[in-house]
Amino acid sequence: MRLNSAEIEKANQVHSAAHRRDVEVLSEQLARRGLDPEKLIAKIGAFQVAVPSWALGTGGTRFGRFPIGGEPGSLDQKIEDAGLLRALSRQTASISLHIPWDIPRDAKATRELAAGLGLKFDAVNSNTFQDAKNHSNMPRGLSYKFGSLCHSDAQVRRQAVEHNLEVVRYGVELGSEAITVWLADGTNYPGQANFRRQFERVRDSLKEIYKALPPHWAMFTEHKPYEPNFYSSVVSDWGSSLLLARATGERCRCLVDLGHHLPNTNIEQIVSRLLMEGRLAGFHFNDSKYSDDDLTTGCIKSYQLFLIFVELVEFLEGGSIKNPPLAWMIDASHNTKDPLEDLVQSLEAIALAYGQALLLPRRELEEAQDHNDPAWAQEILQNAYRTDVRPLLAEARLRQGGAIYPVEAYRRLGVRERLVKERGSGTVATGL
Amino acid sequence: MRLNSAEIEKANQVHSAAHRRDVEVLSEQLARRGLDPEKLIAKIGAFQVAVPSWALGTGGTRFGRFPIGGEPGSLDQKIEDAGLLRALSRQTASISLHIPWDIPRDAKATRELAAGLGLKFDAVNSNTFQDAKNHSNMPRGLSYKFGSLCHSDAQVRRQAVEHNLEVVRYGVELGSEAITVWLADGTNYPGQANFRRQFERVRDSLKEIYKALPPHWAMFTEHKPYEPNFYSSVVSDWGSSLLLARATGERCRCLVDLGHHLPNTNIEQIVSRLLMEGRLAGFHFNDSKYSDDDLTTGCIKSYQLFLIFVELVEFLEGGSIKNPPLAWMIDASHNTKDPLEDLVQSLEAIALAYGQALLLPRRELEEAQDHNDPAWAQEILQNAYRTDVRPLLAEARLRQGGAIYPVEAYRRLGVRERLVKERGSGTVATGL
Amino acid sequence: MRLNSAEIEKANQVHSAAHRRDVEVLSEQLARRGLDPEKLIAKIGAFQVAVPSWALGTGGTRFGRFPIGGEPGSLDQKIEDAGLLRALSRQTASISLHIPWDIPRDAKATRELAAGLGLKFDAVNSNTFQDAKNHSNMPRGLSYKFGSLCHSDAQVRRQAVEHNLEVVRYGVELGSEAITVWLADGTNYPGQANFRRQFERVRDSLKEIYKALPPHWAMFTEHKPYEPNFYSSVVSDWGSSLLLARATGERCRCLVDLGHHLPNTNIEQIVSRLLMEGRLAGFHFNDSKYSDDDLTTGCIKSYQLFLIFVELVEFLEGGSIKNPPLAWMIDASHNTKDPLEDLVQSLEAIALAYGQALLLPRRELEEAQDHNDPAWAQEILQNAYRTDVRPLLAEARLRQGGAIYPVEAYRRLGVRERLVKERGSGTVATGL
Amino acid sequence: MRLNSAEIEKANQVHSAAHRRDVEVLSEQLARRGLDPEKLIAKIGAFQVAVPSWALGTGGTRFGRFPIGGEPGSLDQKIEDAGLLRALSRQTASISLHIPWDIPRDAKATRELAAGLGLKFDAVNSNTFQDAKNHSNMPRGLSYKFGSLCHSDAQVRRQAVEHNLEVVRYGVELGSEAITVWLADGTNYPGQANFRRQFERVRDSLKEIYKALPPHWAMFTEHKPYEPNFYSSVVSDWGSSLLLARATGERCRCLVDLGHHLPNTNIEQIVSRLLMEGRLAGFHFNDSKYSDDDLTTGCIKSYQLFLIFVELVEFLEGGSIKNPPLAWMIDASHNTKDPLEDLVQSLEAIALAYGQALLLPRRELEEAQDHNDPAWAQEILQNAYRTDVRPLLAEARLRQGGAIYPVEAYRRLGVRERLVKERGSGTVATGL
Repeated sequence: MRLNSAEIEKANQVHSAAHRRDVEVLSEQLARRGLDPEKLIAKIGAFQVAVPSWALGTGGTRFGRFPIGGEPGSLDQKIEDAGLLRALSRQTASISLHIPWDIPRDAKATRELAAGLGLKFDAVNSNTFQDAKNHSNMPRGLSYKFGSLCHSDAQVRRQAVEHNLEVVRYGVELGSEAITVWLADGTNYPGQANFRRQFERVRDSLKEIYKALPPHWAMFTEHKPYEPNFYSSVVSDWGSSLLLARATGERCRCLVDLGHHLPNTNIEQIVSRLLMEGRLAGFHFNDSKYSDDDLTTGCIKSYQLFLIFVELVEFLEGGSIKNPPLAWMIDASHNTKDPLEDLVQSLEAIALAYGQALLLPRRELEEAQDHNDPAWAQEILQNAYRTDVRPLLAEARLRQGGAIYPVEAYRRLGVRERLVKERGSGTVATGL
Repeated sequence: MRLNSAEIEKANQVHSAAHRRDVEVLSEQLARRGLDPEKLIAKIGAFQVAVPSWALGTGGTRFGRFPIGGEPGSLDQKIEDAGLLRALSRQTASISLHIPWDIPRDAKATRELAAGLGLKFDAVNSNTFQDAKNHSNMPRGLSYKFGSLCHSDAQVRRQAVEHNLEVVRYGVELGSEAITVWLADGTNYPGQANFRRQFERVRDSLKEIYKALPPHWAMFTEHKPYEPNFYSSVVSDWGSSLLLARATGERCRCLVDLGHHLPNTNIEQIVSRLLMEGRLAGFHFNDSKYSDDDLTTGCIKSYQLFLIFVELVEFLEGGSIKNPPLAWMIDASHNTKDPLEDLVQSLEAIALAYGQALLLPRRELEEAQDHNDPAWAQEILQNAYRTDVRPLLAEARLRQGGAIYPVEAYRRLGVRERLVKERGSGTVATGL
Repeated sequence: MRLNSAEIEKANQVHSAAHRRDVEVLSEQLARRGLDPEKLIAKIGAFQVAVPSWALGTGGTRFGRFPIGGEPGSLDQKIEDAGLLRALSRQTASISLHIPWDIPRDAKATRELAAGLGLKFDAVNSNTFQDAKNHSNMPRGLSYKFGSLCHSDAQVRRQAVEHNLEVVRYGVELGSEAITVWLADGTNYPGQANFRRQFERVRDSLKEIYKALPPHWAMFTEHKPYEPNFYSSVVSDWGSSLLLARATGERCRCLVDLGHHLPNTNIEQIVSRLLMEGRLAGFHFNDSKYSDDDLTTGCIKSYQLFLIFVELVEFLEGGSIKNPPLAWMIDASHNTKDPLEDLVQSLEAIALAYGQALLLPRRELEEAQDHNDPAWAQEILQNAYRTDVRPLLAEARLRQGGAIYPVEAYRRLGVRERLVKERGSGTVATGL
Repeated sequence: MRLNSAEIEKANQVHSAAHRRDVEVLSEQLARRGLDPEKLIAKIGAFQVAVPSWALGTGGTRFGRFPIGGEPGSLDQKIEDAGLLRALSRQTASISLHIPWDIPRDAKATRELAAGLGLKFDAVNSNTFQDAKNHSNMPRGLSYKFGSLCHSDAQVRRQAVEHNLEVVRYGVELGSEAITVWLADGTNYPGQANFRRQFERVRDSLKEIYKALPPHWAMFTEHKPYEPNFYSSVVSDWGSSLLLARATGERCRCLVDLGHHLPNTNIEQIVSRLLMEGRLAGFHFNDSKYSDDDLTTGCIKSYQLFLIFVELVEFLEGGSIKNPPLAWMIDASHNTKDPLEDLVQSLEAIALAYGQALLLPRRELEEAQDHNDPAWAQEILQNAYRTDVRPLLAEARLRQGGAIYPVEAYRRLGVRERLVKERGSGTVATGL
């Protein structure tokens, strides 16, 4: 299904007057701080985050899964869902695919379908954490039970390399320009493997994949300390990820998934480190309280999200940091919320953190830092964070034809009900 | 399949001489400390731990599952596997069932099968964390997506209560004497539910189940801070579990699963607290590095396991603590090991920790404690822990007809190969 | 030194016009949501948090301390500092003393001094974590090296009990009505003490102190998992604290220090549990990223602070929960910020979280909860949290004679410089 | 005071017969496994760990310190204490000094004193986490309140660099060959400093110090995630430490302090990474349950200590890893134990882990790894770990003139009592 602009306009009507007033008074407040609301709206409007194809259906845990109706049963329907998200939020313009779950039957048609909805294809993702029997990612029928690119058996590594190359081929057909290699590789028990040899095998395998990349493509490595392996991960932390990226090649960079860190990790500092080294690939946004919980971005640690954007804004606003442009993606799991509502909430939270960070008077902050004035630096940060910039986000959406209040519009327009009607309640989307 | 005593004897031959020598010299060392090896062997031999029916097949994570061949395809085959574990290890004499995965078609026949293998039925477990469509645990066809005993909808609570009562009925038929109620109930997002009302509903539902228990039955509540819910759990910690046990009734006690705690928790202190209150039900043994990893008991934090037995041994050896007898169970998941080998290793690790704790000169330890002499208390604990008591374990097994070296015997006797031959490589056991 | 109203008025002038405008437009926005700004201002204005006498000077770590000048060198000067905080913020009207650091030489004079500054005396705090040689809290000259109320030596326990009774006597003279008993008691090494006996001794000692309390006094127990002991704490968690409170008496309740929890703890759920049991004493506010960091309240986990107030607001607004009135205190350490600025920032953050929680449409939230609608519940919570209610706080302060922008006023009025001038730069305040 | 060999021999007498028997039967068991006890004894005997001068007195927390009597009141007395440790344990042959706490008045005399006790000088340590007024490490009288090598003020950085150079000069005089630069530098509050600029300043300052090193000297960087700063540390993790080491020079390497990691960190994997990169400096041994608890090595996570040695043994036994020789040091704090007893226990625990790791049949382990046999790999590791190799340690000590049972000998010989008699009970050692 699609949402046309008349429907969205209609959904906007009830909020229109209040919204105009909110923009007006916020603009006045910002002007008092020497900020130009128009520039802020333009920047926020231009900020676009990719949605993950694997998270358009209900997610689950090892304990179970409770599907919602109307889940997309095909790649085309997933693209349609991304189109719905775009129509409402105007904060996403691309979709990140996962192979073999999202193999296009006809790449040209798939591209056209997406283009018609204003969507491009973001980084493609390979899958070597499952054995997909009888499928192209298992050309040799060998198992990933004990790893893929790190495996002690060269044949398994070869199979995994070939699968990644296949993913690149699909990506090329769709116009993607990067591959994300998240590896489940690791061990469950002390002694199970030699850490160093595992690492060296992954490094060599990544080099092989990298060599076969089109010259304008980038490769993203992604660290994670545990799960699905519970004693060690090969790409356990940003240090390991950086070693791999450097060994692999110039266009290999490190992706930061917010949920992939040990308790209490200062993630914003890791972001700073990777930017400093010119090796930050971008983000997999989500939120967590305990582990890789894959919750809605900003629903638990919203100030941390803001602090990450505080690190980014210097780079985004044209500072001296040398790093290629960043990739923005959501990677979440929706076990109990409607996946589309959850993604809309994530998109809003990310834009909000960006908008707040844009308010920072950076020179004043630097001064407080140079004078070792933490209390004043905190005033500056909290003043930005505590400002309610939601009207700017809504205005940015509105100007691009989106909804003033996307979650509410989604409900008002009965999107889920219409999806269930169209697709039935029995479909289960491929994904996590 | 079954292992007969001749097979095990044969497997023991190669180790026999060395074993006798090891028992001899260890006995001599222990005698020097004033310990009676015969008494220790008898206590270790009498210590029996239940195995979980749901962990006799390969386990998995949300990312995938890699089955091993020869998994038990029926309750009878699960009981057979428990029989194999018993034959080799002599450290297990019961099996803990999970309903609806393990519904006996003929309770009498099932009991006889088990009895023939020297097995009884330990606590039965209910399942309200999954929707088992078209099944008896879903009499009303309502979903547990948003909880079971805590649900805001009285009908769902009723369904969950009825399922628990059904589990008790099965347990009664099999001779079990306790029900373990582990609840996945909780929330994924702040604000999703009112903590207090959720708690009160669980409390009231537990009371209903408790009222229907046979008078000699016990009920076990089990705490867990997160997973499958990632913002809050209703029975999140021992404090909550104790409140529920007290509200429910005298025979309601608190089960401690070693993996169900926040990072750095002092679990042995929690064990002491629950014993002090007379409300310790027993254990779900496993090990973990990060989260509820469900690894082999003792494979990561073996000293912690010993310290837990240090707390228990005062009670087990007849101290002044008033607590009903404890239930000993394993609750692990075997994602990459052979489940039977994994369970054999867990059984050994548990017996080892018990054996080490039995070495403690308790009066000397109390004296060090009374005199605030932590260095000496540490000497006492480490002296017990560092002693290699494996010969006592082997001797205890041997005397009951078990294997001197169970994992090695398992392999020498080709058990897995024979299971695959018998059952095929395609069966997938029900369970986690 | 004191700040007179003319000074504060003058500091307010520069912000006055903008503030009036901010209040105006926020009031309009709130009215649209059906909220009465006047009621909100009144509630926020009435909300008062005690400041800790031990945190008016620079704090330190075991690695060092870097004093700021002008620290209060006497109890009178500490009271003066609390008066400055009150003058600027109007969010504090009491001070919480720590004995033996804050023994009044003349209780009547001390009371009058405080009263003249609009201050009362909040809960008094005992100190049994240090050996204060030749002092009244060491009547028997025995050491707390191995604990106080938990000590194996009855004489040490007696000394600690007597010290607590002495603290109560000082409190009575000053008009306090509660004693906070935070215990450092615990162990550094496994085996050092018997957990159960330690607990029982603390319980019996608390009972002794409780018996001697004036009938209108309350006793607060406070849990903490570690530090200064690094293997176990006697009052390690809310469960232990609740057991102690119940064993001690009706007016013994459990205090929650935000920094006293293991990584990832859901503190708001603990707050709910203690309220449910009618045993919540109140709070020691601060913030932390790793451990008991004692940072400015709200500087790291501001959403968590809000979620705590979400739990509280049902009680504060007159719901059905039966719990005595709560005690609100800050307990922070200011290692690198000016202590007074830090406290002003904490006071603002606490009032902000309260103000945001007051915006919640509680009936609508309950409906979302009853219908298991986590996405909508999140919208409701985030709508409250994202609203910039700072103008209401400023207005509440202004109406009571305080500063529109307290930190800025503090600097504009040169408070620290004047304190240094008055007291010198060499004074070091007693405290942590 | 000193212990002469006759005293130690006498203390050994009571254990002598049992010890000889234990060595005999263990040797027999090891021979059965194809291991040569003589070689093991030789390796264990050759393994020597430096003791920290700053931990020879009682340690403390921010809450207090409870001195034991007889603490060393001068550098000479500290060296004497290290001599006592050497006399008893024969597992230490060097002392690691901390400047300005341990400035030798006459380097030649100090060296001779040490040599007479069989001691050399290990890495020297600088101190830029405290302001030592009127002292040589504050040549410019500037404060480290806001950092040292990372400071925004070039003058403070210069002062800190000069202090480090002074430390090197003292080290050269004493025969040390490395400087350990542990930095407290970091921030307490978000926004307080720019992470990147802090890092770059530390990097540039380290380069300056490195340039001035004698050509045979090494520099060690040491990571720590938090404390004394509670929002960020500049050298927060091994990744940051490695970046600094590489930027600084070939002889700059990364030191691993076991207590300087976030909860659940897989430290043995970090050890493997740094070895792989040829940048592992060595260790600061201790143990912890929660934080940087600085407890006795091996008193909490003894299996983790063993797993670290499993990583090391491949290197130590002459594998293909290219890394300079490692530095072995203890860094602990003794708040409630006698410091000397605590250090003796740490030395034993370290040697024990090394001895256990030496038992590993490395080829068999590699085979299990190559065949993805985690259950068997676990058998191999646990077989080594569960073996009681204490008799080998005692024999290694005995052959060098040490005590069979050092802690017991320490008490039997009344060392602490004699120290108190000699030095009095009022001395407080400089240190942490």
